[in-house]
Amino acid sequence: MGVSPNEIGIEWEKVYAERAKGMRASEIRELLKVAKQPGVISLAGGFPDPTLFPVNEIKEVTDFVLLNEGSDALQYGVTEGLKQLREILVERMRKEGADIGLDNLIITTASQQGLDLIAKIFINPKDTIIVESPSYLGALQAFNAFEAEFVDIRINKDGMDTDILEDTLKDLIFKKRIKPKFIYTVPNFHNPAGVTLSLERRKRLVELSEKYQVPIIEDDPYGEVRFEGEALPPLISLDRSHVITLRTFSKILSPGLRLGWIVGDPEVVRKIVIAKQAADLCSPSITQNIVYHFLKKGYLEPYLEKVRVEYKKKRDLMIESMEKYFPEEVKFTKPEGGLFIWASCPKSINTEELFFEAIQEKVAYVIGASFYAHRDIHNCMRLNFSLPSHEQIEEGIKRLGNLLKKKIGK
Amino acid sequence: MGVSPNEIGIEWEKVYAERAKGMRASEIRELLKVAKQPGVISLAGGFPDPTLFPVNEIKEVTDFVLLNEGSDALQYGVTEGLKQLREILVERMRKEGADIGLDNLIITTASQQGLDLIAKIFINPKDTIIVESPSYLGALQAFNAFEAEFVDIRINKDGMDTDILEDTLKDLIFKKRIKPKFIYTVPNFHNPAGVTLSLERRKRLVELSEKYQVPIIEDDPYGEVRFEGEALPPLISLDRSHVITLRTFSKILSPGLRLGWIVGDPEVVRKIVIAKQAADLCSPSITQNIVYHFLKKGYLEPYLEKVRVEYKKKRDLMIESMEKYFPEEVKFTKPEGGLFIWASCPKSINTEELFFEAIQEKVAYVIGASFYAHRDIHNCMRLNFSLPSHEQIEEGIKRLGNLLKKKIGK
Repeated sequence: MGVSPNEIGIEWEKVYAERAKGMRASEIRELLKVAKQPGVISLAGGFPDPTLFPVNEIKEVTDFVLLNEGSDALQYGVTEGLKQLREILVERMRKEGADIGLDNLIITTASQQGLDLIAKIFINPKDTIIVESPSYLGALQAFNAFEAEFVDIRINKDGMDTDILEDTLKDLIFKKRIKPKFIYTVPNFHNPAGVTLSLERRKRLVELSEKYQVPIIEDDPYGEVRFEGEALPPLISLDRSHVITLRTFSKILSPGLRLGWIVGDPEVVRKIVIAKQAADLCSPSITQNIVYHFLKKGYLEPYLEKVRVEYKKKRDLMIESMEKYFPEEVKFTKPEGGLFIWASCPKSINTEELFFEAIQEKVAYVIGASFYAHRDIHNCMRLNFSLPSHEQIEEGIKRLGNLLKKKIGK
Repeated sequence: MGVSPNEIGIEWEKVYAERAKGMRASEIRELLKVAKQPGVISLAGGFPDPTLFPVNEIKEVTDFVLLNEGSDALQYGVTEGLKQLREILVERMRKEGADIGLDNLIITTASQQGLDLIAKIFINPKDTIIVESPSYLGALQAFNAFEAEFVDIRINKDGMDTDILEDTLKDLIFKKRIKPKFIYTVPNFHNPAGVTLSLERRKRLVELSEKYQVPIIEDDPYGEVRFEGEALPPLISLDRSHVITLRTFSKILSPGLRLGWIVGDPEVVRKIVIAKQAADLCSPSITQNIVYHFLKKGYLEPYLEKVRVEYKKKRDLMIESMEKYFPEEVKFTKPEGGLFIWASCPKSINTEELFFEAIQEKVAYVIGASFYAHRDIHNCMRLNFSLPSHEQIEEGIKRLGNLLKKKIGK
C-alpha cells in the first residue's frame, strides 16, 4: 500500500535557500535558556533593568494617544515612520552635531531591523564586511543571513585599531582586489567589549572611509547611556556622506516597543524605505505615537538620568566585586556607559568549557567566542550588569571568581 | 584645490547588492500620494475602516497591561512570540480544522514580515515561484527582493485554475527541469481579485502540492472577514505538512499593531525563528500583550461581527453603484468578504493611462497592472470599499463610471 505522499511531507532541507543553510540559532539564545534554570544568577543576556522602566509615564502618554488619536494609532502608517517622531529625532541628532534633515532619517522596528535592512540592500553572497574583533553577535547574524564574509579588526581600550584597519584596507583593496562593502563598528560602550572609540580614532576612521571610499555602519545603541566621562561626537556628525548610523529606543527607553531609527545619505534612506516596505510595510503606528508623545512631554531625559545613575551603581559594584573575587590574571574593561563588562582570562581557560561548570555553580555569562566572526578566541566572557540586582551582581561575581581561581589553581 | 573626498561622498549605486538594484518603490505607494490630493475620492489603498476600530476595548486592555504587566510588556520577548498569545492562536486555528500545536506557530511583525521571512529562507536568486495572475503586490515585492522569477497562473471566479496549475507544474518539472520553490496563493477574497478558491480547487491544490512535492504558501489575511456565504476550510486544515499559512491582525483588528502569525511544519517554524531573530529579534512585547488580553476578553468576535456588517453594506453599495453607473462592458467581481472589488474593462482601455484622467475627475483606484508579475494585463483596476464612506463610494463610482462611459464612447 505504501505511505501516502501527504504523510511523507516535504524534505525542507532541500527547499531552503543557500543563505538559510548557514543560519544557526543564536548560542546566546540557547545559553539564555540554560541560564534560566532555577537558582542560576544570570550575568548573560543584555536586557535593560525592567524595574526602572517609566511605566507610569508610558501609561499616561498611551492613554492620551488612544483617547485622542486612537484611529491613527491603529491604522497603517507610512514606511518612513511617523513624521512628527522623525522630526523630533532629527532635532535630537542635530544637537549631537549631525547636520541632517528629515530625508536622512527612517524609523525601523528597532536596530536589529536596521541591521537586516542594511544587510539586505548592501550584501551579495561572499561580499567582504569589516567587523570588529569581537563584534556584536546580532550584527554578525544579520550579515551572515546574507552570506557575508568577515574580516575582523582587533579592538583595544580605545576601540577599533585604525592602524590595523588601514593596513587591512590596503591589503584587501590593492593586493587582493577586494572592495569591502562596509566597516561595521559599535563606537560607544562596545557590545561585548565595553570600550569606547577614542576621538582620535573616530577622526581617523572617517578619514579612512573617505580615502578608501568604504562606508561606515555606526551602530550606537548605548551612546546615551553614558554615566561618566565626556560624550564623544558620533561618527555621523563627522561625515554624513560616508556614515550610516543605527539608533534604537531599546536601551534608552524600552526594547518591548521595538523602535529604532537609521540616519544616512538620503539616497540610501530611500533604498532602505523600499526594502522596509517589503519587510514589514511600516513599524507599528501605536508604538511610534506613544514614543513621540513620550519625547514631546520631555519624559526621556529624566528617565535616562535615572538609568545612568542606577547603571553606574551596578557597574561600580560589578567592578568592585571583580577586583575582590576575580584572580588577578583575569583582566577586564571598565566601561563608561552601556550594559557590559568584558573579561579576558588567561589563554589556558576556555570559557566555552567553563560555562558548564559555571552553571553547576549557579552563575551564567555569555561565552566570548560567540562574538568573534571566526570564533578564534576562547578565553573571554561577556558580563551584563544592567539586569541583575545588586545582590545578584555581588554573589554572581563571587561564584564566578571562585570558579576562576580554582581553574587557575589558586 | 579640488573637491575633498568627503564632499564627493559614496557612489551608492556601486555599493548596493544585486537584489537592491531591482527594488522599486511600490507604485501603489506613489499613486496613493496622488490619491491624497484634496478633493480626490480614493478607492485605492487597502486600509480597514478606522471609524470601526475598537479603540475603547484596546484602551481598556492596554491600561490593564501597563498597570499589571508593564515591566514585561516593555522588555524583550522571545523570538517565537508571547506564549499565551501563541496558545490562544493555536486554539483558534484548531477550531478552523488545523491539527496543530504550539511548535507549529510563530508570531510575526504582521504578514508582510511573514512574506519577507518566507522569501528569506526559501528563495535563491532566479528561483521560480508560482503566483496567481493577478497576485498580491506586497508578496511580489517581498519575493522580488530576493530575486525570484515568477510563473503565474490565471485565476477566475473560483480562484486559481488548478488545471492550468498542473499543466504548468508538469511543464516546469518534467520538461524544463525547474522545481518551483512554492505556490503562493490568497485563497479567500483575493487581493486584488476579490474571488475565493472553491472547495474542489482547494482539495486539488493540496493534492498537486503533495503529488509534485511543491509547498503551498497560503496567505489568508481576509478569511475571517467573510460577510456572506459559507466559510471554506483553510488549506492548512487539509494538509499541515505541505502548507505554510500566513495570518495577520491587520484586517481583523488593527494594522497599526503590526502583528501576524505563521503556521507551518515545526521544522520550517524553527528555521523562521532563526531568520526572524536576525530580522528584528522579536515582535513588540507591548502589542503582543495588548492583543492577547483583547482576545482573552472575547473582544475580537463582536468587533469582527461589526466589521462584517459594515463592510457588507459598503460592498453592497459599491456593487449597486457600479451596476448603476458603470458601462455594461466593464465586468467586476462580487466578493463574499474582504476589502476589494476587481473590475475588468474592455481591452481598449488602459487603466494606467486612465488613472491620470481619473485623478482629474477626482477619483483614484489602483492600476491593475501592478498586480501582475509580468505586468502584461492593462485593462483592470482594483477598487477598495472598506475605507471610503458611503457617500464617497457612491460619488467615487459615479465619477469613475462617467469617465469609463466617456472612454467607451457611450
